[in-house]
Amino acid sequence: MLQVYTGNGKGKTTAAFGLAFRAHGRGKKVGIIQFVKPNESGEFKVAKALGILVEHYGHPGFIIKEPRPQDYEQAKIAWTRAKDIIESEKFDVVILDELNVAFFFKLLNVSEITSFIKNFKEKMEIVITGRYAPQEVIDLADLVTEMREIKHYYVKGVNAREGIEF
Amino acid sequence: MLQVYTGNGKGKTTAAFGLAFRAHGRGKKVGIIQFVKPNESGEFKVAKALGILVEHYGHPGFIIKEPRPQDYEQAKIAWTRAKDIIESEKFDVVILDELNVAFFFKLLNVSEITSFIKNFKEKMEIVITGRYAPQEVIDLADLVTEMREIKHYYVKGVNAREGIEF
Repeated sequence: MLQVYTGNGKGKTTAAFGLAFRAHGRGKKVGIIQFVKPNESGEFKVAKALGILVEHYGHPGFIIKEPRPQDYEQAKIAWTRAKDIIESEKFDVVILDELNVAFFFKLLNVSEITSFIKNFKEKMEIVITGRYAPQEVIDLADLVTEMREIKHYYVKGVNAREGIEF
Repeated sequence: MLQVYTGNGKGKTTAAFGLAFRAHGRGKKVGIIQFVKPNESGEFKVAKALGILVEHYGHPGFIIKEPRPQDYEQAKIAWTRAKDIIESEKFDVVILDELNVAFFFKLLNVSEITSFIKNFKEKMEIVITGRYAPQEVIDLADLVTEMREIKHYYVKGVNAREGIEF
């Protein structure tokens, strides 16, 4: 089954990791590949400590306007890893965190990846997160939740806080 | 700060638990009280195993039309525990999972609880989840994400699966 968490609100990556921990707690095998993520998050550390396969790929710094060559490279490495994990058919849940963002910046080819996922999504749970989910991803998905921002404290000038935002 | 995850889509409880694991991974002290939840979930087991304070309260079976006396009792016990945890000021993050559902069934008094939370939300991160967030909760919140169901596989007849839905 393919689940997608998209939208501009807080809670997409945490929902995916929450699902990872839920599955892990039920004895399921979980793999997590993070795209466009140069840094280790709090949840990454916990997942790793629990023995969940979790890897993050991304070039340091934000993509301002145009992706840098390293952004393409990192996304390509991340997708190669994700593909291996999915093809192995050894995982019950595979999370592709921020893959939608990689699509948004055209770091990866949407049609190629959705075609690939189509062949495996009945054999395992695949979860894609990130704002700007492309229509092809929405169309293929069995479940889509849009995280809609109703209110956010950044408008009050609150910056990203360790342990809360990352 | 008060964060609220509401709406009819999948991902509210998982987002709150994902945040709990994120905070835990950063060395923060986390407490989780689950309302209207008679059963242990996969994420509950993992949180407990990690030493996170996590407790669930709820009378077995669904509330069909009218809450049963035990639903009121369980919600009251859960809120007493939540109050103690918040008042202790020993926690960085306190998650009140499905509290909105307890409000929806009028198991607890919204005004009383929001007034209480107002006095503590600048001292710690408080997170409330559950569909049907009452207006008073939305008004008090610093961050609100609505999980909107765009697509859900239950329409295809897929039932709740262990490790994925609970």
